[in-house]
Formats: sequence, C-alpha cells, structure tokens
Amino acid sequence: MTTKPLGMVETKYFEFGRHPHEIALECGKKLGPLTLAYETYGALNDDRSNAILVLHALSGDSHAAGFHPGDKSPGWWDSMIGPGKALDTDKYFVICSNVIGGCKGSTGPSSLCPSTGKPFALAFPMITIGDMVKAQKYLIDSLGIQRLLCVIGGSMGGMQVLEWVRAYPEHIRSAIPIATALKHSPQQIAFNEVGRQAVMADPSWDNGNYYGKGSPERGLAVARMIGHITYMSDKSMEQKFSRRLIEKNYSFSFKSDFEVEGYLRYRGDSFVKRFDANAYLYITKAMDYFDLSGGRFIPQGKKIEVRFLVIAFKSDWLYPAYQSQEIIRFLKIHGLDATYCEIQSTYGHDAFLLEIKEETHLIKHFLDKTFHGYDVAREYVI
Amino acid sequence: MTTKPLGMVETKYFEFGRHPHEIALECGKKLGPLTLAYETYGALNDDRSNAILVLHALSGDSHAAGFHPGDKSPGWWDSMIGPGKALDTDKYFVICSNVIGGCKGSTGPSSLCPSTGKPFALAFPMITIGDMVKAQKYLIDSLGIQRLLCVIGGSMGGMQVLEWVRAYPEHIRSAIPIATALKHSPQQIAFNEVGRQAVMADPSWDNGNYYGKGSPERGLAVARMIGHITYMSDKSMEQKFSRRLIEKNYSFSFKSDFEVEGYLRYRGDSFVKRFDANAYLYITKAMDYFDLSGGRFIPQGKKIEVRFLVIAFKSDWLYPAYQSQEIIRFLKIHGLDATYCEIQSTYGHDAFLLEIKEETHLIKHFLDKTFHGYDVAREYVI
Repeated sequence: MTTKPLGMVETKYFEFGRHPHEIALECGKKLGPLTLAYETYGALNDDRSNAILVLHALSGDSHAAGFHPGDKSPGWWDSMIGPGKALDTDKYFVICSNVIGGCKGSTGPSSLCPSTGKPFALAFPMITIGDMVKAQKYLIDSLGIQRLLCVIGGSMGGMQVLEWVRAYPEHIRSAIPIATALKHSPQQIAFNEVGRQAVMADPSWDNGNYYGKGSPERGLAVARMIGHITYMSDKSMEQKFSRRLIEKNYSFSFKSDFEVEGYLRYRGDSFVKRFDANAYLYITKAMDYFDLSGGRFIPQGKKIEVRFLVIAFKSDWLYPAYQSQEIIRFLKIHGLDATYCEIQSTYGHDAFLLEIKEETHLIKHFLDKTFHGYDVAREYVI
Repeated sequence: MTTKPLGMVETKYFEFGRHPHEIALECGKKLGPLTLAYETYGALNDDRSNAILVLHALSGDSHAAGFHPGDKSPGWWDSMIGPGKALDTDKYFVICSNVIGGCKGSTGPSSLCPSTGKPFALAFPMITIGDMVKAQKYLIDSLGIQRLLCVIGGSMGGMQVLEWVRAYPEHIRSAIPIATALKHSPQQIAFNEVGRQAVMADPSWDNGNYYGKGSPERGLAVARMIGHITYMSDKSMEQKFSRRLIEKNYSFSFKSDFEVEGYLRYRGDSFVKRFDANAYLYITKAMDYFDLSGGRFIPQGKKIEVRFLVIAFKSDWLYPAYQSQEIIRFLKIHGLDATYCEIQSTYGHDAFLLEIKEETHLIKHFLDKTFHGYDVAREYVI
C-alpha cells in the first residue's frame, strides 16, 4: 500500500482543571488550571469509534507526525502516522497527547505558577504516570470520545498505555504497549537517578531556580549522554561507530577521539536546547514511581474487554524483552486476548522508533481486526 | 584445603626512569623519574620461577591482599591471595603492581612535576595500557625476575595481561585475562566518555587545576555512579535492591526514594574521598585507547610459549563473554595452549571480585599445572 505525507499540522492546547475543579494528584496535592498540548491527524468518524491515542516517551512531545511551519523534519513518529501508514489517517483519528510535568506546551515545572506569576520550579508537585493519564482522560472526554479504538506508545508511552488499561479499561478497545515494563526495575531507576544527579550536580541548576538565568546545560547534557548509551545496543554502536576516529590519529588529549564520543557530545548539546532540566527530573521520577506489579495492573477477577498487542525488541537492554514477557504472561493468566511479538532488531531500545516496517506490519493488522472485527488487510491478500 | 590470613603487609615504592633514562611513552612524550607502588606476598624461590604478577582494574591499587596498619578491611583481592588460596603464597611469590597515571602511590597527574614543583594536572602526558606495562617491566626486572610464572588480572587488569603477552611473551609462562577484551568497544568508550564529561562539567574541575582547592567531587561521584551501574547486572540489582524503599512511602521529592538510589549516592560519595579526578580521566582514556585487534596482539607466525586461561562471566554486560570468546578464538587460531571458562554468575562485571570459589578452583589447578608441568591438586585427589 502506498503512503502519503501528512503535510502541515498544528499543536492544540486543551485547558482544564480550573478552580474549584483542580486535579487531585497521586502525591496528595492538587494542580489546576492545567494545559495539555496535543495534536490530531485524520478525522473522527460519525460514531466516534476510530480514535487512536498515541503516547510519547521521556523526551517526546505531542508533535508525532507531519510538519510545523518552517520545520525541516517531521514529528517523532511520522513514519508510523499518516495516510496508508501503520496508524492510517485515512481510516483513523489519531491523537497524540503530551504529558503534564514536561516542557512541551503542557503544564510543568517551567510553567508560571498562578499564585506567584513565576515559574513553578521545584514548587511544582511531583507527578506520576497515573497523573499524566488522568489529565489525558480529560482531553479525550473533551473530544467527545467515549471509547478509544486503541492506546499505543513505546517506552514511557508504553507505561501510559498500561496505566490507561488499569484506570479506564471500559474506555479502550485495544492497547499496544511497546518496549516497556509493568514496573521500573532497579537498573532503570539507577540510570534515571544518575541522570538526575548529573543535573543537580550542575551549580547552574541552583535547586531548580535557574529560570531567567543560565540553565544547567552541562549537567543535562551528561544526563542525556547516559540516556543515549542506554537507547542503543552494544551491537548497534559497533555497527554505527566501531572504533572509528574523528581525526586520523589519537589526540592523546581529552578531546573527542572517537566518533562515538563526538556523537554523544552532539546529542547531549542539542538536547539542552530543546528540553527543560526540571522537566527531565520530574518525568524521570514519574517513570521510577511506575509500578503496576503485584495485582495493581488488573485486579484478580476483574473482567475487562481490551485486546493487546505487546511488542518488544531482542537487543533492547534498557527495557529488555523479559519485561514485555511479564506483561504478556500476566495478560494470558487473566485470560485476555493478547499477542506478543519480539522483533529481531539490533537497534536496542531505539528500535521502537526505527523498526517501522515490522511495526507497521504488526500494528496495521491488529488495528484492522480491532476496528472491523476481522483483518481487512489480510482479506485483501486472499 | 584450609586457608590462612596473610596478616600485615606494606606498600613499597620502586623509583626508576631518572634522566637521561626517562621512559618513552606511546604518545611520543618522555616521563621520568617515575615511582611505581607495589606490594609482594610470599617469597621468591631460589630459581625465581614462582612469581605471579597481579594487575588491577580502573580504581584498584597495589594493595591487593592483607592488612595495612589500622585497616578494617583487607586488600581488594584478599580472598584470592594468601596461604592456601588461589594465588597460594605458601608456594608463589605474588606481586601486585599499581599503574602509572593513577593516584595510588605511582606517578600520575596529581604527582609533583619535577620542573615546576607543582602537581602535573593536565600537563601530565597521556598514558596507555602499553605504558603501564612498560613501567611494570622495569619493576619486574629490578626484582631480578627473568620470567613470570603468571600475569593475572580482571577488567583493565586483564588488558594489562594481554599487553604483557603482546610486549614480553618470552618473559611470562602463563596469562589469565579475566572479564576483559582485546579492544575497547564503542559502548565501553561511551560509558567512559560520559564519566569524563561528568567530571569535566563540574566547575571545580577547572581544567584540571583543582589541586589545593576544591576537587570536582560532584562530577566524579556521578562518573562513579555510572560505573557502578555497569559493574552490576540487571539481575544482581534486582536481587540486591528490587524496588525496596528507604522510607516507608514515596517521598514525592528528589530525595533518594529507593535503596538502589541510596546505594549509588553512597558509592559515588565514598569514591571521591579515595580517588583523584584527573587520574580517573587519564586511566579511562588509557582503557579507551586499548586495541590489540587486527593482528596487534600476536603477529601472524610469531611463536610464543605462554599458556592461557581466559575467564568470563555470563551476566557481565560491560565486558561481555563474547569479548573473551574473541580472545580465545584468536589464541586457538594461533595454536596456543588456551582454556576458556564462562562462569555462570549473576553478579555482572563485579563477578571477577566475587566469584571466588569458582575462580579459585580454575586458577589453582591452572597454576599448579603451569608450575609443576602437571596438576598437583588433581594428583592429590587421585
């Protein structure tokens, strides 16, 4: 099937939770009013049954597909969203919602606190994956959608998918958690904590009060560099960089000698231009608090009607396949309609953004079957 | 066999390389005079054929076994060195040599530069694993040892073992590289580079000129925290910490919530008290430059008479078993007497310091056979 580009898109802003209807957060505090940035692609059908909610990862945003005016590159999952693509906007109404706690247009630590008129900084309450999803539910309600055809996302987006299932199972028909986990493991917590320590060790961080002054760029760059190592695999690094040098010979200095060093420094430096350090702290903490193990996911005996497609990647060592297998085992024990697929990729955790052909194949069929009750694409083949 | 404690030991200092006999370094510069810290355990036999050289890892030192006055814990490989132990000091003369470039008594960036009377700091020349071994050869010569019974070490110690084989094959009878690699991979370089960036991002680092002022403690602590994650395995972290909390409930703050966070912060903070930040930069760089691939290890056609025992650990993802397999494959292709053993450990890279029972079993027999020409321990059994 041929695909077409989505063209120009725009970010919208949903405002909600005004006093006295602030949102009650898991930490016990209240927050409001709130703004949630989101984008939509395609059109909602008459019976509002074709809506798919896309959820993004740690550093993602609501701009999942198409172009903003002046942009050279499209949204972060453009290869998956558009006419004829995995999330086919000729058929489906695709919504991508940002998370609260971030810095991409939704309320977060860099937003102005209504009572002081200054950025919240660390006065911003701690948020959880549960809080992010609660806010998204307000958005979906406001769009008049009673039941989502699908919730889909990778990494932290996958955690939001699982939280949607936990909190609002009657409001979704299917769920596609990709390269994710039922709970953050100590190793995953450890990597996040080191990233946070790198930010907080930067004197410019100044206990979070750096707005209007210099931001903790060097600390955040180090945090991001750590992240990038964990997103790739030993093998993909070998394939991409091996021991290739930037110059002809070793510098015998602390300059970047190897291409992999130059790459990491570049990725670290470019990240600080687009991301708020406090948002990084809040979002990584939300991930670390995430734990739907021990019956918290779907309580024993609870009947839910959600179809699942669980996807993992062989070389992903940050969210290893065994964590997706734990999800599928849990679903199977509860007698749910669930399919597991482990894609043979060498890309590591980044694979969920890169293994487009495999993902498209799996997701397209799964969505067709969920939407029509049978596999349209497969029918075509026959 | 029963083992006995080694008791009190002392560090010795070997001085060499005085003008005009400075050491020529790989970077092209010369360095001298130099000091090399080392310890010895047991006694050299009459024909000087029972000497074993132990080589340490990144943050190690010459104090491998026994106690210094006032110490509560013994040297870093005490469980392996002593009467009746794997490196049996009733039979063997065990030498542990520190590396140049470090901060544990040997000449390094924190040493005083003879011409200025101030610490070298970044005026210290870049050193390599080859330079470290070259310096050790002076030490072994000074002890009157023509041929070492064995060179043994894990991690960076293993790199020195391989470099000893490359540079001085006629001066060693056997080699035991543990949890190491023929070359540093881009992932290994990447982790080191992020650690260096964390140090250099700390304003206290001050381009290396922090001596007598405050050292870059926060940056070095972050570097060490990254290191500790890579030394453990996902599984060993799960077994040691799981998601256990320090307090009863989530703090909903940026304090340490999880035991794993407290552990990492503790390990980071204690490291900065015992290690020099510039030394960390120099030694990690030496590791990154290490590359004996592509025929540099043992040139085609060169006959060497060295026996090998190559040891790797199943859960070690920092120096994965495939890297040890590359070493053994190379040795076998060259027709050398080489044994490979992959120990089923969950400890990750740390296993070389922890899997004492397995290592003792393997190494004791291997040394016996090297020393006597047959396996004494096995004879006893028969």
